[in-house]
Amino acid sequence: MSDRLVIFDTTLRDGEQSPGASMTRDEKVRIARQLEKMRVDVIEAGFAAASNGDFESVRAVAEAVRDSTICSLARASEKDIARAGEAIRPANAGRIHTFIATSPIHMEKKLRMTPDQVVEQAVRAIGWARQYTDDVEFSAEDAGRSEIDYLCRVFEAVIKAGAKTINVPDTVGYNTPEQFSGLIRQLIERVPNSDQVVWSVHCHNDLGLAVANSLAAVMVGARQVECTVNGLGERAGNASMEEVVMAVRTRADIFPVTTHIDTTQIVPASKLVSQITGYPVQPNKAIVGANAFAHESGIHQDGVLKHRETYEIMRAEDVGWTTNRLTLGKLSGRNALRARLLELGVVIESEEQLNAAFARFKDLADKKQEIFDEDLQALMSDEVVTPEVELYKLLSLRVSSETGEVPHAGITLSVSGQEQRADANGSGPVDGAFKAIESIAQSGAQLLLYSVNAITGGTDAQGEVTVRLAKDGRVVNGQGADTDIIVASAKAYINALNRLASGRMRADPQGTMV
Amino acid sequence: MSDRLVIFDTTLRDGEQSPGASMTRDEKVRIARQLEKMRVDVIEAGFAAASNGDFESVRAVAEAVRDSTICSLARASEKDIARAGEAIRPANAGRIHTFIATSPIHMEKKLRMTPDQVVEQAVRAIGWARQYTDDVEFSAEDAGRSEIDYLCRVFEAVIKAGAKTINVPDTVGYNTPEQFSGLIRQLIERVPNSDQVVWSVHCHNDLGLAVANSLAAVMVGARQVECTVNGLGERAGNASMEEVVMAVRTRADIFPVTTHIDTTQIVPASKLVSQITGYPVQPNKAIVGANAFAHESGIHQDGVLKHRETYEIMRAEDVGWTTNRLTLGKLSGRNALRARLLELGVVIESEEQLNAAFARFKDLADKKQEIFDEDLQALMSDEVVTPEVELYKLLSLRVSSETGEVPHAGITLSVSGQEQRADANGSGPVDGAFKAIESIAQSGAQLLLYSVNAITGGTDAQGEVTVRLAKDGRVVNGQGADTDIIVASAKAYINALNRLASGRMRADPQGTMV
Repeated sequence: MSDRLVIFDTTLRDGEQSPGASMTRDEKVRIARQLEKMRVDVIEAGFAAASNGDFESVRAVAEAVRDSTICSLARASEKDIARAGEAIRPANAGRIHTFIATSPIHMEKKLRMTPDQVVEQAVRAIGWARQYTDDVEFSAEDAGRSEIDYLCRVFEAVIKAGAKTINVPDTVGYNTPEQFSGLIRQLIERVPNSDQVVWSVHCHNDLGLAVANSLAAVMVGARQVECTVNGLGERAGNASMEEVVMAVRTRADIFPVTTHIDTTQIVPASKLVSQITGYPVQPNKAIVGANAFAHESGIHQDGVLKHRETYEIMRAEDVGWTTNRLTLGKLSGRNALRARLLELGVVIESEEQLNAAFARFKDLADKKQEIFDEDLQALMSDEVVTPEVELYKLLSLRVSSETGEVPHAGITLSVSGQEQRADANGSGPVDGAFKAIESIAQSGAQLLLYSVNAITGGTDAQGEVTVRLAKDGRVVNGQGADTDIIVASAKAYINALNRLASGRMRADPQGTMV
Repeated sequence: MSDRLVIFDTTLRDGEQSPGASMTRDEKVRIARQLEKMRVDVIEAGFAAASNGDFESVRAVAEAVRDSTICSLARASEKDIARAGEAIRPANAGRIHTFIATSPIHMEKKLRMTPDQVVEQAVRAIGWARQYTDDVEFSAEDAGRSEIDYLCRVFEAVIKAGAKTINVPDTVGYNTPEQFSGLIRQLIERVPNSDQVVWSVHCHNDLGLAVANSLAAVMVGARQVECTVNGLGERAGNASMEEVVMAVRTRADIFPVTTHIDTTQIVPASKLVSQITGYPVQPNKAIVGANAFAHESGIHQDGVLKHRETYEIMRAEDVGWTTNRLTLGKLSGRNALRARLLELGVVIESEEQLNAAFARFKDLADKKQEIFDEDLQALMSDEVVTPEVELYKLLSLRVSSETGEVPHAGITLSVSGQEQRADANGSGPVDGAFKAIESIAQSGAQLLLYSVNAITGGTDAQGEVTVRLAKDGRVVNGQGADTDIIVASAKAYINALNRLASGRMRADPQGTMV
């Protein structure tokens, strides 16, 4: 019988540290529900002490999810741990994940503590955390540059203090599989009572080796992998959950472990995370890229079709690639909408919200013949369930463009309830619309990224636009969806402005180098 | 002193097998020039026997490139090899890469040959190839499912016959690093005279392990890696060249090899390939993703900035991430344009071409203040240097869209020189424009993908649109760039229609399972 491999998803914590990927509370809850549906073992929902917003998000996820363990990150301080403990209190099963740096450079420069003090602090942290839950995880930050003897000493001490999971991060993505598995093997061999804890790894993908490093660690005894949907995360991201899960499953002959993941939920999770964060998935991404299963692409492939099973190492259906499901049409009613949204993990909390969502649904059904799950997700991403500060609201937009003429846009916004209008020329109609909006908002924000995804196929597809704005060192992503790409663009720009205006401040996430 | 690792780029062959990524001769030449600039050792330019178009492409690359070896793929048949030999004849250094299947299932079902016959055929193929060049590479197709004793027998025979490089593909991306390196180690140990050839690997990324598998093979003696820019290729693609190169370079303490690659050309190559194929690169892609170097993203990161060097394992500059270079302005003349294009690998062959390019450049400079290298690349991708059949040409486009009204587009096309116009409503202006075009062209093609990339920053950026159309089992990508997204979309649709109309037929590339 093979061992259980614990899947620890950190899309909502490390994934959120991608530039502009920060999520609202409700967005986190929607993703968490999908992770629960996939049967993820542990969901790291955030870093409760980072900000009030983060605290609320972790708490909301702890309330919404029943089947997965909900975890909050916490520095090894009493305050951080108290916030984490409070945030996870509503959870059926809660975990606190505390960390402290163990490399000479970090201890000296960042913590200004001696190695002895760091051991003491780590042990105290476990004690504090155990006041809230028995399920305590400890990470040695910058383990890759720590001395192995010292690491063993720290781990021995925290195991004695009651840590149940020991995590070894490759913070800067510098390791190779052979080297990293060597480290994990040594640690498991040398640390006393290592068999009483679950060994965990957390790998970054800077050299494209995060998945391989994680799997190499599994081969020598790691039994938890920290990973993210679509490999989201700082810089080149974390280990990709879908790749780890499918490698272990496809190569059950090699890996001595199994996961509990419902793999048919992988592609829906990928699409949802991509939609909410505005981070596209490239077509040639393994498992979840649009081309990952080429035989699904409609190309006539005589040779392949003949002996299809002999070429396939995975089936597209197994990871949730199905044709878009027609879910609702023009004649669907309010209750059908509510039910379908619930299945998609969107909980409508008031009659008012339902009415607003239904009105938007009807609008869309007028313009678009078939409404797919992806369309509904986009509809919900827009504003209905996003209780952000809505300083700016789009009332109307008119654009005209003709080859040889200068494109022009006229826009009417509601600004704190006051109607304002503006006109502008631009190098294109999107540029015109943005300039018109800016002439009202005067935000002075810098446009970092503009991207468009067609949500479903066909020429009447909704376009979902992501606009990334930067101002005073803050970066936000705004999303907008519409069958009209110019309207979607204007909505996305306005959404980004509202997020800038909401001024949600958080502790510098980049300070966390786990 | 460390060994040389041969970088064998197959972007133009295996990369081209991605759905819709097929390239014109001139596009291949542009990419090949960039690969030469990067100092790629071997460029696999195509599969000469697949079609006349492929033959012409290989030949054109062989004529254009001086410093890299130019290779053509060829089945183990006299005809295929003769075509390959003829196509590479103009090259300074040419290679023929011939292959035959060695797995029981392929030999029986596909080749209908006995194992003895396959050995004989392989040996004969090497002989045929050596009539054209001494640089002959042999691949055992479906090596992963071949019996090792038989593989050893085949390799021994082809080495004796004069093959210089022996390639072991992991065709379906099923291997894990430990297992794959075990196979390579055994082969090198067991095959007589294995020290007289270069051992090569060709890995696919279905489980996210292509780079790790390639690197594991390097650790046990492989000295050539077959890879593609951006990890392009069938399904989840091939090993990513940039990841292989940077892993070997960054971990020079572990890998016993060095490459000759000029790593500062990596990001320009990535952008060029993405632009030409229409395959975007996700932001969290290692090395070449927009976020791969987070400290470049303009985010204020106090903690990181303090000890930047200690967190960095690579520098963004080393892989060619530089701020966009302002290359030309409104006042630049014809010769400045020609010179800059040449630097970008675009050779203008006639006064007429130069005039057309210059007119387009002036148009763009009217709309856009700053013209970057990326803008010029997009300008060139459009049509000037693409001698496709131009059945349809955009003459003018007018769109209007207003919230609450039905979007409308009016278009005038030249169809084989005849002016035709049409109007259409749509769910958005892009939909309207596509419907108007279709009402003229009546292609009946299916829209598979619509994607937009902003080429440079700023709101007056050009948008580059990719439209993927399918008809009768053929899939084509069309590109269009403009500061007006609707115009760019219409151009892309028309470009795709022209590619469909050009009816370039090729042998089924999917039949090649190397």
